Amino acid sequence: MKLSEQYLQIRKHSEQICEPLETEDYVVQPIVDVSPPKWHLGHTTWFFETFILQPYSAGYQVYDTAYNYVFNSYYETIGNRVIRTDRGNLSRPGVQEIYQYRAYVDAEMILFLENPLPAKVEELLFLGFNHEQQHQELLLTDIKYILGHNPLFPAYRKERVAHAGGHEQSDHQGPALELEYSQDQLESSAMRKIEAGLYEIGYAGKDFCFDNELGRHQVYLPEFSISSNLVSNAEYLEFINSGGYQNFNWWHSEGWDWLKNNHIVAPMYWHLVEDVWHTYTLAGLQPVALHEPLTHISYYEAYAYASWAKLRLPTEFEWEVAADSFKWGQRWEWTESAYLPYPGFSKAPGAIGEYNGKFMVNQKVLRGASIATPEGHSRSTYRNFFHPHLRWQFTGLRLAK
Amino acid sequence: MKLSEQYLQIRKHSEQICEPLETEDYVVQPIVDVSPPKWHLGHTTWFFETFILQPYSAGYQVYDTAYNYVFNSYYETIGNRVIRTDRGNLSRPGVQEIYQYRAYVDAEMILFLENPLPAKVEELLFLGFNHEQQHQELLLTDIKYILGHNPLFPAYRKERVAHAGGHEQSDHQGPALELEYSQDQLESSAMRKIEAGLYEIGYAGKDFCFDNELGRHQVYLPEFSISSNLVSNAEYLEFINSGGYQNFNWWHSEGWDWLKNNHIVAPMYWHLVEDVWHTYTLAGLQPVALHEPLTHISYYEAYAYASWAKLRLPTEFEWEVAADSFKWGQRWEWTESAYLPYPGFSKAPGAIGEYNGKFMVNQKVLRGASIATPEGHSRSTYRNFFHPHLRWQFTGLRLAK
Amino acid sequence: MKLSEQYLQIRKHSEQICEPLETEDYVVQPIVDVSPPKWHLGHTTWFFETFILQPYSAGYQVYDTAYNYVFNSYYETIGNRVIRTDRGNLSRPGVQEIYQYRAYVDAEMILFLENPLPAKVEELLFLGFNHEQQHQELLLTDIKYILGHNPLFPAYRKERVAHAGGHEQSDHQGPALELEYSQDQLESSAMRKIEAGLYEIGYAGKDFCFDNELGRHQVYLPEFSISSNLVSNAEYLEFINSGGYQNFNWWHSEGWDWLKNNHIVAPMYWHLVEDVWHTYTLAGLQPVALHEPLTHISYYEAYAYASWAKLRLPTEFEWEVAADSFKWGQRWEWTESAYLPYPGFSKAPGAIGEYNGKFMVNQKVLRGASIATPEGHSRSTYRNFFHPHLRWQFTGLRLAK
Amino acid sequence: MKLSEQYLQIRKHSEQICEPLETEDYVVQPIVDVSPPKWHLGHTTWFFETFILQPYSAGYQVYDTAYNYVFNSYYETIGNRVIRTDRGNLSRPGVQEIYQYRAYVDAEMILFLENPLPAKVEELLFLGFNHEQQHQELLLTDIKYILGHNPLFPAYRKERVAHAGGHEQSDHQGPALELEYSQDQLESSAMRKIEAGLYEIGYAGKDFCFDNELGRHQVYLPEFSISSNLVSNAEYLEFINSGGYQNFNWWHSEGWDWLKNNHIVAPMYWHLVEDVWHTYTLAGLQPVALHEPLTHISYYEAYAYASWAKLRLPTEFEWEVAADSFKWGQRWEWTESAYLPYPGFSKAPGAIGEYNGKFMVNQKVLRGASIATPEGHSRSTYRNFFHPHLRWQFTGLRLAK
Repeated sequence: MKLSEQYLQIRKHSEQICEPLETEDYVVQPIVDVSPPKWHLGHTTWFFETFILQPYSAGYQVYDTAYNYVFNSYYETIGNRVIRTDRGNLSRPGVQEIYQYRAYVDAEMILFLENPLPAKVEELLFLGFNHEQQHQELLLTDIKYILGHNPLFPAYRKERVAHAGGHEQSDHQGPALELEYSQDQLESSAMRKIEAGLYEIGYAGKDFCFDNELGRHQVYLPEFSISSNLVSNAEYLEFINSGGYQNFNWWHSEGWDWLKNNHIVAPMYWHLVEDVWHTYTLAGLQPVALHEPLTHISYYEAYAYASWAKLRLPTEFEWEVAADSFKWGQRWEWTESAYLPYPGFSKAPGAIGEYNGKFMVNQKVLRGASIATPEGHSRSTYRNFFHPHLRWQFTGLRLAK
Repeated sequence: MKLSEQYLQIRKHSEQICEPLETEDYVVQPIVDVSPPKWHLGHTTWFFETFILQPYSAGYQVYDTAYNYVFNSYYETIGNRVIRTDRGNLSRPGVQEIYQYRAYVDAEMILFLENPLPAKVEELLFLGFNHEQQHQELLLTDIKYILGHNPLFPAYRKERVAHAGGHEQSDHQGPALELEYSQDQLESSAMRKIEAGLYEIGYAGKDFCFDNELGRHQVYLPEFSISSNLVSNAEYLEFINSGGYQNFNWWHSEGWDWLKNNHIVAPMYWHLVEDVWHTYTLAGLQPVALHEPLTHISYYEAYAYASWAKLRLPTEFEWEVAADSFKWGQRWEWTESAYLPYPGFSKAPGAIGEYNGKFMVNQKVLRGASIATPEGHSRSTYRNFFHPHLRWQFTGLRLAK
Repeated sequence: MKLSEQYLQIRKHSEQICEPLETEDYVVQPIVDVSPPKWHLGHTTWFFETFILQPYSAGYQVYDTAYNYVFNSYYETIGNRVIRTDRGNLSRPGVQEIYQYRAYVDAEMILFLENPLPAKVEELLFLGFNHEQQHQELLLTDIKYILGHNPLFPAYRKERVAHAGGHEQSDHQGPALELEYSQDQLESSAMRKIEAGLYEIGYAGKDFCFDNELGRHQVYLPEFSISSNLVSNAEYLEFINSGGYQNFNWWHSEGWDWLKNNHIVAPMYWHLVEDVWHTYTLAGLQPVALHEPLTHISYYEAYAYASWAKLRLPTEFEWEVAADSFKWGQRWEWTESAYLPYPGFSKAPGAIGEYNGKFMVNQKVLRGASIATPEGHSRSTYRNFFHPHLRWQFTGLRLAK
Repeated sequence: MKLSEQYLQIRKHSEQICEPLETEDYVVQPIVDVSPPKWHLGHTTWFFETFILQPYSAGYQVYDTAYNYVFNSYYETIGNRVIRTDRGNLSRPGVQEIYQYRAYVDAEMILFLENPLPAKVEELLFLGFNHEQQHQELLLTDIKYILGHNPLFPAYRKERVAHAGGHEQSDHQGPALELEYSQDQLESSAMRKIEAGLYEIGYAGKDFCFDNELGRHQVYLPEFSISSNLVSNAEYLEFINSGGYQNFNWWHSEGWDWLKNNHIVAPMYWHLVEDVWHTYTLAGLQPVALHEPLTHISYYEAYAYASWAKLRLPTEFEWEVAADSFKWGQRWEWTESAYLPYPGFSKAPGAIGEYNGKFMVNQKVLRGASIATPEGHSRSTYRNFFHPHLRWQFTGLRLAK
């Protein structure tokens, strides 16, 4: 596929995700971690404008210089950023104006992509593609948060899409909804054993990957076993019903404080309606489907569940080594690993260097992908990362020992 | 005018205030004191539905029972309220849906008002009118806050309306903008002396007034003098330039802490642009007009200015007694009086009783009206009230001694 | 009595209050409003040193210049103050060193007082006496807070002192404990009616009073009635048992929020031990004595009780006018009045002017005195003031209508 | 040495550390991480009482059952704990009473230790020894914090003890002070190279170690180099003077926020006095000694310094492998490693199991020991851990590449 076609396809997908929205849904920011959808649409556009068109497209006219102030995210190098909590206070620029901004930048990018690109610019372009795909996942999870915390529980779409199992096979068109969990997987719930040995970790291919995956290196792993399946809602309900949220023995000290201070008694979006656990899905409030993989849990909850089950979470290295032996792609899987640099990691100079390295403290690595991850965006060496208390992504858990 | 005509005129005015808005402007809530415009539109409608149609209009069908949860403000008697800070997180119901809600309730109200009303219901109706008028002023000040805290400084309207002086003479059509200050007032800046004596305080007429104005009673006042004019921007600039915000001697202890903690150095909306003080107006960012009356100050600032000027604020009783001797209506005027019940005050039973009495602690009385107050809504016995640190209303100050 | 004798007597009383303390009790500061006892001892000494010895005693050598930094309270004019919350972090100067500081300043003061004083200095001296007496009351209430919030509930003294009724008759030696409530008072619980009329308010004598009592002026009062008795524990228990803390109708909106956020269900120091209400007294934890006057309540609770009882709190003017008709002195009585300046009030120049005026916002007036008030310190025109949520003083309530 | 002698020697050392204190110094808690010295003395005693005497010494009489409530630290299994921030509010039990508590428990322990111990109890005893030693280091760092944040800057001792270099050689009697840095070390500042390979990590001996060091396992390390020296004050001053605290490029995103929110511009205890950097030491405020190893820095600062120097921090595994090649023991050295369980780690059952495992999230590993670490308490496999923003320990940094 031509680069300009790739570009348009990815850009169009962001807008498709927003199709079911009303204008008002684009604007609100309920919590600091959730951004208004219109901000995502503007920010991803600002990325291409700032890092490609401005430096490399001769004569490019910036759409609106004030946008640098509004749509910057965390790039300290590029002017003053809007404090993240304030994103939800900006009613202007409006949604239509942001779509015009997208159209303007897209037209300029298409022109720009007709000419051959220097390697360095092509690298930035692929970074821009992957950056937009990351925000596509955030768009969907942020929309779910916005609608799912409205007391009217409006649905994003009318029906839930069923599709089979793992990530590679999935054939979703348009943004994904939560999935039915395929029957065949549930049958093979045995642990799979992996031999001790020295393994290669990190990205080895020639395609795009993030800087945090680079520096392929050897890691020695003792023998371990890892489950073929994600933990299901039914399994997690046993933990809840056994008093798991009331027994500090299963929890980290910080996890226990988090649970107490926030009155947490179940995964995010779960509501006990007339004694039946329901969960808000993109299709509205529904009874919890017992056979589906658990989702919207924090690392603290993943760890507590594993402790209660007398097992543990895999490390990110174990996960990567074992990834070919199971289906993955429905849930971002919390690992026991902290988000740290691989040997030899160094930040790129300039604003692009702020992409990953500055976040390498106090976060946990998640591996895999989720039903909200755009097709082709993930791989077995992909390192996602979040703070241990966050739950609004499609997170889940796989056990190891 | 017929009641139904009055009703429609008032209801229409709320919608006229919102005409210049984009849909996105209806949705955001930058701070807890500022509500999203769409909430004001819904809440005033909910008031008529809940307190008139539901109890008194036989067979009335509630538009949406969930709205009671969304549009209640602080009425503890009526179901669970939405926490105020969460109003800005509710993207649904959308703006168009709220306008439909208004149309539905308006149609029902018009039908209902064709029949003669029992006295008690008429009382509630007038309360509803005045309630909606209060929210009209809040709508305008909240819109100003939302647009005026956007780094793009979008204007609400293109030009500022000039009109002459006092409240009674004003002839504004559509929502008001900040005013030019009439020349004739500036000439008569002398203090006017009022004799000591026993004065009657409180509402004495037969028309609508709020419960907090009732209980007309005698108050003895020593001789005092009161200014014919509001303090102007030029006068306040002298205070600023003399280091008024850096000298704790002029401030209450709490005012000084407020100023320090919030880095306050000028009235709200003032920005120093290339050494010239500008202020955000509904027509956009403009140089401060020196001859206009100061606005958007807290009680703390009003008190500090008066201390610096070796004068003081009037009490609300002095203000009421002297009100006929000066023009008023451009700024809500901070008084020295705390908001307390008049002798014999008692709360009405039920939810309506929550209107005023429960706020009678820790607030200061403001008298007069502002250029954002709807025509006919205020009177010389009207008691407005806010916490001493708040500044987003069109507040100002008149000196006494 | 000679001035130097008066001085010594007052100074000694502060130290008598601290006699039962262990060194450790002098040091802690559990909440921002409670100061460590050693700070009170140092601060009152610093007052005489700073406002009398330094300016008026020729050749006086300051004990330690760093103490100005440590023992200043809120006097912005005098150097940098220690942030109030930090008082409890200062282990040095130690208790013995502070007693040496007291001895040093006392010796210098005695020498200084042998010579005749200019009127202005005498005025400062009496201010110093009254200032120390105010801190004597705070010493006792802060000690009670410190011991009463220790899970070991240590007693300050072994037995409670009983004494008869009102303040004037009391004959307490050493610091007071909570009192038995005299039988004769309970008999005359009728409301007493006071005629409408113009009354003189404010201090009229020639002895010391605070600046906030001055400016004697006329106030017109409608007819009112006021109770001869303070509300008792038994009466307040009825309010508790009737669900008073669960019904928002009795509360101010801010009071209700305060109660919810702080999980308030009873007066401060009350604990339900095996279904019997106990209260921490200076003699330790004891069953609530039903016939004693209620104490340690906030203004919010006083107001809520009065609302529930279908009555109200008196204004400070009503209280002052009626004060001769009942016994008072056991509890600081919350009034409905906000703490505001009397007509003609103006701050003294310099640091002394910071004594009262800067606090005249957001506080309520309390009248009377408590069993912790030093003999001779209060009078019927005395205006005490606290924020409405505070409860650690010996506060109580008298009803009016 | 007999167990009872060992016991007494360790117990006595805690009391020696407190010898220079005044009673008041034992009581205060300036911040949540710093505990009052008297609490440390009580808590370590409570440990022996609760985990050894109560379960294993027949007929043992608990000294005071209320102490379980007061001196528990974080052991959720053992009754209700006192919230950590409240420790500084408890003036009772007093210092003398706590020393009596120590004497009582010590006498009982000596009796108990005369008989042979089951293996399990001996294990608990050694845990108690090491627990007390950990609190000895905290005692000293907490005392430093308390005295070093007093505006009077009182000294803990009069002179600083000089001793030579590394930890093993030190010969300190009584609690340590900050050290002179030995000249011989400064000469050998070259990086030392370590070959790639599989290394054994974790404790392998037969003596006491903590559970977090167990599970000796293989780790593969690529070739690396590590400095022979700790970073010195002189070197760090270059970073400060080059604008290191003003350039976000060197910092983690969270580190940058921490620095901004807390106005951090230098290590803890550093004060710029007349343009010369001073630092509070246990001997009082002194000019920063340039040749001494840097101390009292956060992980954020260690990381930023390494980034600025174009190097990095070692991992805890690199540190352990290289530890024999350099002198260590003056500073706890921040590593790049997150505090995570070793393969096969599992918590012991019961309260003892809460010792380490529950803290294995969001903390960084520090290796080595400091001049405040008791003799014989550390070893090259020892894993200390703190949150990345904490600075009140004697922390430092060694570079790697």
